[in-house]
Amino acid sequence: MSADTPSYIRGLATRARAASLAIAALDAGRRAALLEAMAESVAAGRAGILEANARDMQRAREAGTTGAMLDRLALDDARLDGIVQAIGEIAALPDPVGQVTRSETHPNGMTVEKVRIPLGLIAMIYEARPNVTADAAALCLRAGNAVLLRGGSEARESNIAIARCLHSALARFGLPAEAVALVEDTAREHVLELLQLTDLVDLAIPRGGERLIRFVAENARVPVIKHYKGVCHLYVDAAADPLLATRLAVDGKLSRPGVCNALETLLVHADIAPDWLPGALQVLVERGAEIRGCERTRALFPQAKAATDDDYDAEYLAPILAVRVVDSLDAAVAHIQRHTSDHTEVICTRDDAAAAGFVAAVRSSAVMVNASSRFNDGGQLGLGAEIGISTTRLHAYGPMGLESLTIERWVVRGNGQVRHPESGQAA
Amino acid sequence: MSADTPSYIRGLATRARAASLAIAALDAGRRAALLEAMAESVAAGRAGILEANARDMQRAREAGTTGAMLDRLALDDARLDGIVQAIGEIAALPDPVGQVTRSETHPNGMTVEKVRIPLGLIAMIYEARPNVTADAAALCLRAGNAVLLRGGSEARESNIAIARCLHSALARFGLPAEAVALVEDTAREHVLELLQLTDLVDLAIPRGGERLIRFVAENARVPVIKHYKGVCHLYVDAAADPLLATRLAVDGKLSRPGVCNALETLLVHADIAPDWLPGALQVLVERGAEIRGCERTRALFPQAKAATDDDYDAEYLAPILAVRVVDSLDAAVAHIQRHTSDHTEVICTRDDAAAAGFVAAVRSSAVMVNASSRFNDGGQLGLGAEIGISTTRLHAYGPMGLESLTIERWVVRGNGQVRHPESGQAA
Repeated sequence: MSADTPSYIRGLATRARAASLAIAALDAGRRAALLEAMAESVAAGRAGILEANARDMQRAREAGTTGAMLDRLALDDARLDGIVQAIGEIAALPDPVGQVTRSETHPNGMTVEKVRIPLGLIAMIYEARPNVTADAAALCLRAGNAVLLRGGSEARESNIAIARCLHSALARFGLPAEAVALVEDTAREHVLELLQLTDLVDLAIPRGGERLIRFVAENARVPVIKHYKGVCHLYVDAAADPLLATRLAVDGKLSRPGVCNALETLLVHADIAPDWLPGALQVLVERGAEIRGCERTRALFPQAKAATDDDYDAEYLAPILAVRVVDSLDAAVAHIQRHTSDHTEVICTRDDAAAAGFVAAVRSSAVMVNASSRFNDGGQLGLGAEIGISTTRLHAYGPMGLESLTIERWVVRGNGQVRHPESGQAA
Repeated sequence: MSADTPSYIRGLATRARAASLAIAALDAGRRAALLEAMAESVAAGRAGILEANARDMQRAREAGTTGAMLDRLALDDARLDGIVQAIGEIAALPDPVGQVTRSETHPNGMTVEKVRIPLGLIAMIYEARPNVTADAAALCLRAGNAVLLRGGSEARESNIAIARCLHSALARFGLPAEAVALVEDTAREHVLELLQLTDLVDLAIPRGGERLIRFVAENARVPVIKHYKGVCHLYVDAAADPLLATRLAVDGKLSRPGVCNALETLLVHADIAPDWLPGALQVLVERGAEIRGCERTRALFPQAKAATDDDYDAEYLAPILAVRVVDSLDAAVAHIQRHTSDHTEVICTRDDAAAAGFVAAVRSSAVMVNASSRFNDGGQLGLGAEIGISTTRLHAYGPMGLESLTIERWVVRGNGQVRHPESGQAA
């Protein structure tokens, strides 16, 4: 390689960035039509995608992969239908590009607007799920960006097959394939290099396990929005409706324990604990939960295991619940401030002042009053689709929809306005 | 230092982060009153601040500092009046904290809102200007944040004197001094360490010369919003009003050459260049500008020096203008895409289609149609005050006002809504 030849990753990112200008230049209708063509193209390529996925699965099994990891990798007809449908739904969302979010006419006659434009080139770094390849490409392109995709090596053939379908849709619109640039060579040093390309990559979004996100956060020079773990809390206040509190605990912990908006810790006010806690924990245990409690919890519910401090920092992703009895709302807030991952916190109370105090004191991406933690999700909150749930308190916090993949910039229109009066006398 | 003792910087940042909760908890009226008290306190401390500044100036002169650097460091009665007035103006701005930016009631009865909260702890890293100490503290606290201030060592005594005044206002409100945490020990390793404190610092904002901003951007693990250089372009289209084009060139280049929203490069369509360019450049030269042009520019205006490719990347911060004749709007856009610093670009034209094409193709933080580049400024664009002009296309792009020092998060209010119907049958 001569000194003038860019590296594999820099070459790919340079072409992707150039392609981002072509995507940004499409009008809203044409961008929607492109997404629809991408959905059709994936549907038409079903057989090839499933064959490629079968080869990935075979290799993964030979490497000893089992369980949840293998399940995340697997595609079948139903999952492919889901991918096609998701792209179609993203195609139908309102176009965020060009939205005017502020508009004023100044005394000097200038009009001043803030208008949404795409971010540019977004790098997604993710793990085994091949559906992220299609999802992330659809969301980024819908918001006028190009995308650089680096999926897990275990899903390499599936990702290549999906990307080829997306490229054929781009080709039908006369657009460069590199608008969806797949890093086919999954060597780790290429990820490291792409995280340094501050002149080309506008944003990196890591999605996956804690280790991946740490790796990206610790090695990136480009801006990163983390989609980190969810250590979500339910605080059952002294003034909680007991039946409602049990429902929120059961839904939060057990409706889908393996996701980031599932509950991990239950905090219970000491005044309500004797009446409510034993029965509620009994319901949870009968439905398959394991309880790890503080001393006061165990005094009320002896079958609970003893919780350690580590339990209060754990994202179990499993039907395990840490429980602690607290003496006040302030003590609950202090516990949350110490252990939160800034994802989702819930208060169950009939006391409006307690609810207001909790909402004001907690700074997580979503705070729920008498509603399940499981609602912290782009679809549930009305965004239509999400590229992930940000736990970074910058740019976007919580579920990231299409708007989060754009930025507002200023557009000023005048008829010769200048700052310095003498400049006006120049001509 | 034992293993359990935090370092100087970690200790300071930990106390500042704790103080941020107290600032966030103030209601809007109390936060405004705090700012007014800060303005009064700086006014009352005038003598001490000027004495401290005199010592800084003396030391700087002894170290051989001269010119613009010494001027940036200097305080006098008029500049102190300006600082006091600026804090008072920030006190009077609308409070961004608690603003509801989205509100919906869902079919299941839940209300879903997006509400602004403070970012938390903001680190400002800046150079000689002591007024930044007061400005940044006022803006960060007005938006409910705490601030960690690391000014230049040359302004150390001035910064300490200003910070003491701000601390006395905090004390009068029963608030911790560390809400305005000044890094008094200006050793460089402390800056390096503070840029690694991802568990404590929510955002770092470097303000100053290119070297400082590069140092922060290259060494930070915490999120950074850059306030980088302005290589601003004026494109004079074939359909430009010639008199108006000259006004925009004179105002952009000469009304204040040392600032980031001043023009650095003039691009002129070949069709208008023979009639317009020689006269316009003559006006600029008569008013003190030096012209560095391409071959075609020099053919029309022989007294121009020859421009090199470096000239088109230069932020002169001086009355020097690079000039290039281009054959089309597309060629002008291509030049800008190659050389822009994403700050401000201007088109002068009477052709609406050309204006629309330019606005769509250029992705800088501000694009002006027939108005001076000098309007890219928080005060001029209606923000009231700014902490700087972001050239990072994430979170905030262009002038950063109070809203940019907050983040929107989700607040959901329900009466027992759950995701999974069976959870509802639990109780």
